[in-house]
Amino acid sequence: MQNEIKKERKPKKANQNNVKKEKLQKQSAKKATQQKSKKDTSKSTKKTAKSKTYQRKSRAQKSAPAAPVKVSFLGGLNEIGKNMTVYEIDGQMIVVDCGLAFPEQDMLGIDLVIPDFTYLKENISKIKGVFITHGHEDHIGGLPYLLRDVNVPVYGTRLTIGLIEGKLKEHNLLSSAKLNVIKPGDVINTGAFTVEAIHVNHSIPDALAFAISSKAGTVIQTGDFKIDSTPIDGGMIDLNRFGEIGSQGVLCMLSDSTNAERPGYTESEKKVGESLEGLFHKAGKRRIILATFASNVHRVQQVINVAKKMGRKVALSGRSLENVVTIGMEMGYLDADEGQIVSIDMINRYTPEEMVIITTGSQGEPMSALSRMAFSDHRKVNVGPNDFVIISATPIPGNEKTVSNVINELMKLGAEVIYEKTEGIHVSGHACQEELKLMMGLVKPQFFIPAHGEQKHLRKHAMLAESMGIDSKNIYVADNGVQIEISKDGIKELGQLPIAKVFVDGSGVGDVGNVVIHDRKRLSEDGLIVVVASIDGYSGDIVAGPEIISRGFVYVKESEELIDDARDIARYAIEDCVNRGSTDWNTMKARVRDEVSHLMFEKTGRNPMILSIIMEV
Amino acid sequence: MQNEIKKERKPKKANQNNVKKEKLQKQSAKKATQQKSKKDTSKSTKKTAKSKTYQRKSRAQKSAPAAPVKVSFLGGLNEIGKNMTVYEIDGQMIVVDCGLAFPEQDMLGIDLVIPDFTYLKENISKIKGVFITHGHEDHIGGLPYLLRDVNVPVYGTRLTIGLIEGKLKEHNLLSSAKLNVIKPGDVINTGAFTVEAIHVNHSIPDALAFAISSKAGTVIQTGDFKIDSTPIDGGMIDLNRFGEIGSQGVLCMLSDSTNAERPGYTESEKKVGESLEGLFHKAGKRRIILATFASNVHRVQQVINVAKKMGRKVALSGRSLENVVTIGMEMGYLDADEGQIVSIDMINRYTPEEMVIITTGSQGEPMSALSRMAFSDHRKVNVGPNDFVIISATPIPGNEKTVSNVINELMKLGAEVIYEKTEGIHVSGHACQEELKLMMGLVKPQFFIPAHGEQKHLRKHAMLAESMGIDSKNIYVADNGVQIEISKDGIKELGQLPIAKVFVDGSGVGDVGNVVIHDRKRLSEDGLIVVVASIDGYSGDIVAGPEIISRGFVYVKESEELIDDARDIARYAIEDCVNRGSTDWNTMKARVRDEVSHLMFEKTGRNPMILSIIMEV
Repeated sequence: MQNEIKKERKPKKANQNNVKKEKLQKQSAKKATQQKSKKDTSKSTKKTAKSKTYQRKSRAQKSAPAAPVKVSFLGGLNEIGKNMTVYEIDGQMIVVDCGLAFPEQDMLGIDLVIPDFTYLKENISKIKGVFITHGHEDHIGGLPYLLRDVNVPVYGTRLTIGLIEGKLKEHNLLSSAKLNVIKPGDVINTGAFTVEAIHVNHSIPDALAFAISSKAGTVIQTGDFKIDSTPIDGGMIDLNRFGEIGSQGVLCMLSDSTNAERPGYTESEKKVGESLEGLFHKAGKRRIILATFASNVHRVQQVINVAKKMGRKVALSGRSLENVVTIGMEMGYLDADEGQIVSIDMINRYTPEEMVIITTGSQGEPMSALSRMAFSDHRKVNVGPNDFVIISATPIPGNEKTVSNVINELMKLGAEVIYEKTEGIHVSGHACQEELKLMMGLVKPQFFIPAHGEQKHLRKHAMLAESMGIDSKNIYVADNGVQIEISKDGIKELGQLPIAKVFVDGSGVGDVGNVVIHDRKRLSEDGLIVVVASIDGYSGDIVAGPEIISRGFVYVKESEELIDDARDIARYAIEDCVNRGSTDWNTMKARVRDEVSHLMFEKTGRNPMILSIIMEV
Repeated sequence: MQNEIKKERKPKKANQNNVKKEKLQKQSAKKATQQKSKKDTSKSTKKTAKSKTYQRKSRAQKSAPAAPVKVSFLGGLNEIGKNMTVYEIDGQMIVVDCGLAFPEQDMLGIDLVIPDFTYLKENISKIKGVFITHGHEDHIGGLPYLLRDVNVPVYGTRLTIGLIEGKLKEHNLLSSAKLNVIKPGDVINTGAFTVEAIHVNHSIPDALAFAISSKAGTVIQTGDFKIDSTPIDGGMIDLNRFGEIGSQGVLCMLSDSTNAERPGYTESEKKVGESLEGLFHKAGKRRIILATFASNVHRVQQVINVAKKMGRKVALSGRSLENVVTIGMEMGYLDADEGQIVSIDMINRYTPEEMVIITTGSQGEPMSALSRMAFSDHRKVNVGPNDFVIISATPIPGNEKTVSNVINELMKLGAEVIYEKTEGIHVSGHACQEELKLMMGLVKPQFFIPAHGEQKHLRKHAMLAESMGIDSKNIYVADNGVQIEISKDGIKELGQLPIAKVFVDGSGVGDVGNVVIHDRKRLSEDGLIVVVASIDGYSGDIVAGPEIISRGFVYVKESEELIDDARDIARYAIEDCVNRGSTDWNTMKARVRDEVSHLMFEKTGRNPMILSIIMEV
């Protein structure tokens, strides 16, 4: 496997699909170098530099305007999730990534959030392809929802495409999809665009950055990356290529901001292996249960390696993990001796000291394998004092509490749990400040757009860029929905696409909106009361009810008096309406709702939703 | 103010209410010292020591059994919140603290959680008093709910009682409450118990530990504490007194475990003042908005001091903050020049560089002042690029995401936001490992019970105790509801009190239980559908309906077809039941529910709650 990847990386056979790119890049390189030399002198004499910038601008305005590339941000800004960026020039579009986001806490009942594809649906004929940086959910998870309406070619590395295939199979879209395997160094030519794939390190193998060239110049989108000089497999990020392209001149860079707040460097994945060895020793005769991200193939490989060394078998628990390991083994990304991995059904045939169970649930997800173990609800694994649990992950912001709960429950069962950062059991997949600056220094973009992060990450990344001498005018903090044009003359805001957060709930896509979410929130807080009565359409007499049914409000058996009061007040309200000669059902309904609502607030201080239903017989 | 507190601390006039205590302590001291000398020799020869321990035990068994004190844990273990511990001997009970907890994410719609007071209600005549360590919500918040049923004397320092008075006023309980102001060094004698108040440092002034002596020996409950050698006011924690009591022999210590995971020392509150000065300079001509915990009086004092030094006025936003500052000023815990604090209505009379706004909302609470500023929903404060925001707090576990959201929104408005740990803008109120060990070393308890923390904190604290040579047999990790007896012979588990988490929702206390919460959860995830029909009791004909009403399920206007299908299927189900001769309404209701539920799952993949209502006319 290693050879194969090396083989892919060795020959710099970029441009095999296209030779035009070189020319384009050389053109842009020339202009960029001119600008850079101006910039270099700017450091000591800031004021002069500024006036020079203005000069340059006004000169550019006099000459013919530079060709612009239009960029639309459909997701991934001011959030970590549903990454999606659209590039457009000369009537052609390409898309980078198509991710999903996991719902925020206030998106009640929502399963997933996907980008708004309206703009792509409207421009379907222009789209030449979707280029995927890597196989994480926030980069591929939206594809099944896109492709069923917008079936355009998809490009990604072997593992990425393998993971996408799994997804599309579930959605019965595999046979119709146009999937293309690419490798680092490949260049895809769409006519207006050439897209070069560049190898980067990340917490999933086979991750790419893209250099997207057009007559507007070259835009580099780093995707998620880190600089790992001792990765488990696949080799170090291709810094040379970033440097080469940088030297040729880069119009703009969009770079990963996830860790922009963190100083220093992200440690190598190899570091985790060293820590694991120490911990396996510490576990002694106990069974080891290790939780990590299913997609972190290299982490899984390291666990398998250490387990082998220590004479332990490996079992897997968690559907996504089993999927990834199956795909990883088939494709050669994972390597284990025959018999090294055993079925979870076989774990009781081994002593605790002979077993490692790798499991999902490192984020404390309630239905995950580790959660079920913690709450004694796992069908195969009973945790006790003979277990040594390693949480080989850091809580994603927002998951701190659920992870803590799982740790606490495992400890209550008597297990020792290793979860602290100081244990060296996890490293991030994203570049920290020094790496980000290194990337900036190699690529030397004219314009810089921080990508992939919340506002605070984007701002911090923008500040890093400024600290490296990129003029603040050339740094653009974008937002989802924003459309811009980038040319050598500058970044121009075109406006805001009317994009929505599209909710996936069950099999429904986009049918749950803010009204429904608002109702769910209200129901979740104080429950509801249904008041229903049948009324004779002629006489106005109540012929059945009023009945009072409540859910999520009070425990009815202990609140009979309150329910009786509500029934009385509803009956009185209806009768009073009828006596006053009102036959408008809506008025009557509103009156009943208000009276019951008032009673409930007075008696309980709560505001349940009141559904008042009057049936005319 | 400082003088006053010093005056309170200077004379060691312990035992002013009681002299018996001295004798008791001396007795216990003797026995403890004997044991300790045995323990000291144990370090080098562990095996011998163990057999000695057993010897000691069997010898003790032969002589009369030592007097035990019964301890019941009503809250504060395996959670951070609703602290409450009950001590019992010779038919007398005392209670330490009566806190509340804020609801977990899955306690939908719940406002507060309080301890289960059943045990106290059953033993009301035995209770001699509730001793409050300090004025934080997790130590005083349950009092209004306790006192309305169990009106026993309450003891606390001046500020603590001041804050309790505010609470009781809101609940119309102030006039009936028996509140007693105590100060460090005071000893309260109930007959069976003597309780000595000891000054500790914490993130609220006037915090206490208690030394609870009885014929069983002395139990020290540290309450929340840290060791601050340069506190803003009130003096350093009374380590000498802990040492003296420790030398006399302590049966058991319950100590604050909140920061047991953190190595080293918690920094002094004074450190924050230094950081603030630097940041005020950095803010330059911008307005400063600083968010912190309302109860952190010393933090507020430091902000006032730095503001004064820099020629800025201070305004307050947030009800709880205004309350605490009012009480703090009245009682002399806060000190500000005339005119230094201005009304929030006046802020526009000053330039940005003349203003500091102190605000609540450091935890990103949705309705807090800072949140409203961030989401442009504050009536008095509009945040923009001229604002410099300091979040002088660390997110409490579980609040990371909401705090992040507020930071992101403030940044989107153009404000600079200082929130990172490295800025030195917050210090914890709880002791870290070295302080915990120091306390352990001074008090040298025979038995140790980690208190105030989740399981992981308690376990880590237990390990710290073990690392200091306390035998693991003498360390007890308790849980809420557990009852134990502690005597010099050991800790004996008596059993588990049947305690519940008591939910406060609106004005209701305990009327929302798991069934209601479960319904709220279901409603929040997929909403509900009400199917209602009126049926002629004789013929079985449908005389009105079926009507379909949904909330929180789908946006009905866009799902008319689905709703029509549901109506048809409900009608068919009813008619089919009638045709089959079934007149059992419950069967009919169940059939309608099942059919509609099945349809909805098939069409949407969702499981809304279905309420089917058949009215007989």
